[in-house]
Amino acid sequence: MAEKGFRISRTPVWKKLKEHAEEMKRPEYHLKHLIQEKHRLDKFSLKHVDFFYDYSRQRVTEKTMDLLFELAETAKVHRKYRDMVEGKKVNVTENRAALHTAARSFPGQSVCIDGDNVMDKIDAVRHQMRAFSQKIHSGAIRGSTGKVFRHLVVIGIGGSYLGTEFVGNALFAFADKGIELHFLSNVDSHNFETIKTKIDPASTLCLVISKSFTTVETMANAKQMMAYMTACGLDPMKHFATVTSKGSPGDNGPLSGIETFHMFDFIGGRFSVTSAVGGVPLSLYLGYERFDRFLEGARELDIHTKYAPSPENIPLVSALIGIWNNNFLGYQSQAIIPYASPLSKLAPHIQQLNMESNGKSVTINNYELDDSSGVIIFGEPGTNAQHSFFQLAHQGHPFPIDFIGVVTPQYPEGSCRPHGVSNHQELWANLISQATALAVGKDDNKKTHFFQGNRPSSTLLLNDLSPVNVGRLLSYYEAQTVYKAFIWDINPFDQFGVELGKTIADDLRREIVAKNKNESYNFNHMDEITQFYLDTLFSGRFS
Amino acid sequence: MAEKGFRISRTPVWKKLKEHAEEMKRPEYHLKHLIQEKHRLDKFSLKHVDFFYDYSRQRVTEKTMDLLFELAETAKVHRKYRDMVEGKKVNVTENRAALHTAARSFPGQSVCIDGDNVMDKIDAVRHQMRAFSQKIHSGAIRGSTGKVFRHLVVIGIGGSYLGTEFVGNALFAFADKGIELHFLSNVDSHNFETIKTKIDPASTLCLVISKSFTTVETMANAKQMMAYMTACGLDPMKHFATVTSKGSPGDNGPLSGIETFHMFDFIGGRFSVTSAVGGVPLSLYLGYERFDRFLEGARELDIHTKYAPSPENIPLVSALIGIWNNNFLGYQSQAIIPYASPLSKLAPHIQQLNMESNGKSVTINNYELDDSSGVIIFGEPGTNAQHSFFQLAHQGHPFPIDFIGVVTPQYPEGSCRPHGVSNHQELWANLISQATALAVGKDDNKKTHFFQGNRPSSTLLLNDLSPVNVGRLLSYYEAQTVYKAFIWDINPFDQFGVELGKTIADDLRREIVAKNKNESYNFNHMDEITQFYLDTLFSGRFS
Repeated sequence: MAEKGFRISRTPVWKKLKEHAEEMKRPEYHLKHLIQEKHRLDKFSLKHVDFFYDYSRQRVTEKTMDLLFELAETAKVHRKYRDMVEGKKVNVTENRAALHTAARSFPGQSVCIDGDNVMDKIDAVRHQMRAFSQKIHSGAIRGSTGKVFRHLVVIGIGGSYLGTEFVGNALFAFADKGIELHFLSNVDSHNFETIKTKIDPASTLCLVISKSFTTVETMANAKQMMAYMTACGLDPMKHFATVTSKGSPGDNGPLSGIETFHMFDFIGGRFSVTSAVGGVPLSLYLGYERFDRFLEGARELDIHTKYAPSPENIPLVSALIGIWNNNFLGYQSQAIIPYASPLSKLAPHIQQLNMESNGKSVTINNYELDDSSGVIIFGEPGTNAQHSFFQLAHQGHPFPIDFIGVVTPQYPEGSCRPHGVSNHQELWANLISQATALAVGKDDNKKTHFFQGNRPSSTLLLNDLSPVNVGRLLSYYEAQTVYKAFIWDINPFDQFGVELGKTIADDLRREIVAKNKNESYNFNHMDEITQFYLDTLFSGRFS
Repeated sequence: MAEKGFRISRTPVWKKLKEHAEEMKRPEYHLKHLIQEKHRLDKFSLKHVDFFYDYSRQRVTEKTMDLLFELAETAKVHRKYRDMVEGKKVNVTENRAALHTAARSFPGQSVCIDGDNVMDKIDAVRHQMRAFSQKIHSGAIRGSTGKVFRHLVVIGIGGSYLGTEFVGNALFAFADKGIELHFLSNVDSHNFETIKTKIDPASTLCLVISKSFTTVETMANAKQMMAYMTACGLDPMKHFATVTSKGSPGDNGPLSGIETFHMFDFIGGRFSVTSAVGGVPLSLYLGYERFDRFLEGARELDIHTKYAPSPENIPLVSALIGIWNNNFLGYQSQAIIPYASPLSKLAPHIQQLNMESNGKSVTINNYELDDSSGVIIFGEPGTNAQHSFFQLAHQGHPFPIDFIGVVTPQYPEGSCRPHGVSNHQELWANLISQATALAVGKDDNKKTHFFQGNRPSSTLLLNDLSPVNVGRLLSYYEAQTVYKAFIWDINPFDQFGVELGKTIADDLRREIVAKNKNESYNFNHMDEITQFYLDTLFSGRFS
């Protein structure tokens, strides 16, 4: 089918891994045996500052890892990563750099695209965010009736809010600025109506986030919110700010309100949490200093990722494990289960980051992949997930799990110990036991109580959930995502897969506009399925 | 491997479907061709009252459906469904009936287990819920300082809250009783601490939901909340109520507070939304009359499900399509994408309902399945999902999608039409275009702009999101879930897969208690991995 050209799936090491995967299906490599090896944890875990990555309960041996490191060499992942952080145009299809790592670099270290140091621009936006958040917190900037801001409504969709939602939730315990955070993303008016019941418009700041400032849903929501502010007798110009590209219609334009913050074409939406996209809302919500600490954590793990050799490189090892599970052991999905309620929005963010980056069908050099890439990412916090879908994890069709644990919780433990253990200890008893149960399984003469076991998981520990460690966690997943792409030899920074649906929606929008203008317009020229849906939409119910 | 005994996967019709699936992979059966057949939509869609189920963009022909209906016959699904609704002990491993459908039956119609009419008990609880909600709404029952209740904190995990969360969100537009709904499920204190910032304790009612009243997380949270109420100078007995089994420690016991509502062993947690588990919180949040309308919708679709012949039976057809996609076309996951923000908590509920029910490894007669069953369910509302993970849906590893559309939205459309279309029309333009784009794909010389197409989806339309239709939606998914189980010949009502993790957690809890009591206790007798985690937990950080 596919034409000639480099494909990782046609290299000798890929073939060796395929053969090795067959070998690993033998009963002696069942996890219940593997995890009994002496020093297994020492061999198959990595520590870096406040990060501990344990892959001892993955279905791997030293041979597996050696082959995977050979795979990484073959795919030239270190060179690709360095090209990325040094500003090369690694997003080849769009002729752009991919410099999310620069968003948390030190201004002193130059990072250049075509010889221009981007750190000047990045630094300017950081100063602007710091000053803005201080003025909002001090009350120097207020709403049009003089009220200080108590509500922040982020108006944006996809990459313009998922990362901020994850970090905002993760750091709720640090949100002491008296500002509540709301997300208006869905064009369904229900989203707007629910927010209306939660805010006081006079003390509400709306932040419209869109790179092009043409995102249909975001524009519709911004206009709806602006009309509401006006209807409330407020001057919307004093209640709006924007994050957008230089020169876009939202850049100090008629909808920009108080201030515009720039985002850059070298940072894609799903990688933009550490840019102004996350920076403006998070510095308002948490204070700029905490946002800065969050950047510091991300930067620190970026440096680890750039310099650590393969066997010590946490994001790379986790990417290799992901590829081993997916391409060699045949698992098509991956769950993320943090035993930490503050991380309840981590999975939706990583779902976007990973699936939008790596769900591709061509290599970076435009050769068709032998198999389209990407895995399904999903997840809920533990122990909630145990009471929801873990039946399937233990006895149904298996899927690998990334467990996440936090050693010291954000809140001090209460004195309540209903079963002799604290709430946090209860969480950990479950965190430890789930990974063990999945791995070892259980023989039982009662078939319903038989557990096959041999179900792989990793456990990532963080010493705590401080801003700096949440920054590390973000950087870890970003790096894991691009490393997977570098191994598959795909471009993780474009997303042409969303274009076709948009094109068809544009056509349909024109049809709807025609009918809105002229009631007698009909859809008989459309195919019968589309016609049915459009007729149903306009008739208000199907008959 | 597996021993003798009936397995659907060894029947002639299964073999015929396997052969037919090979045939369906031929290029002439690409969806771009199939959907051009005349009257395709008429042939491959079903209407029932306010429900429209369109499977015209599934990879099926009339032959496929004939074989699938033969499969349903072979699996005796209609008999199994009738046995279930008539009170037979279809949950054979636990020797219980599975009568969630009775929770919305008319009291006049008797439903018997072992000759006892359960409708009397169910009716008694309904009357109790009606009276209780009226007394709360009228202010006849108040908190210990005389304040009327404005906040309801549901304390429960898994099936004790996911369904209520789904329905509560779906019907937010109808929540006019002045009561805010909160869910305290996670044992992580963060969950409790966030709720504390949102409630006024004096006007807060806590509803503890646990069948056994021994669920570890729920008991820990209930005690934490009770201690907080006491610390606030309130009498917790006037701020608590319980939903639990007759005779459990929470049945009019020391923790029961104002009132206890009974749940029954013939309704499992994930099927319990229409019982007191959903009924008490939803009738407080929405008013009992609306909860009753919700039951009416569920009952109405139950009747359809019981009596409609296979080709007209919406839940059965959708279950067969699911099995076709999973077992014959090889898709291992399934997304649920409602183009309706009120349905944003539908996917987590169905994730539990489906994955906990159907992730099994043995048949109902205790024979090992040839392949363990179940699919990964995940989802987010549209259009948000388009801006998150749809890149993978279009160009990465494919997965089938259930789209959901609502013809008339809950909120009247504003006058804002930024692109000449209303917000609701915008949603629909996308709903229609995504299903089309996935099906037809697009040829393009630019490889990055090539779309393989042939990616299947169904579209479920509801005329509106009224309480009655949300009831239908719930019943639809419940019936789809059990029909899938009936075809796979598994028991969807037990969940022994969660036991092993619990057993190991019990052991670990004992270890933790020992260390809590005696600081010098050590874990050297444990395996090295477990030892590391326990040492880390107690040292407060890994070194």
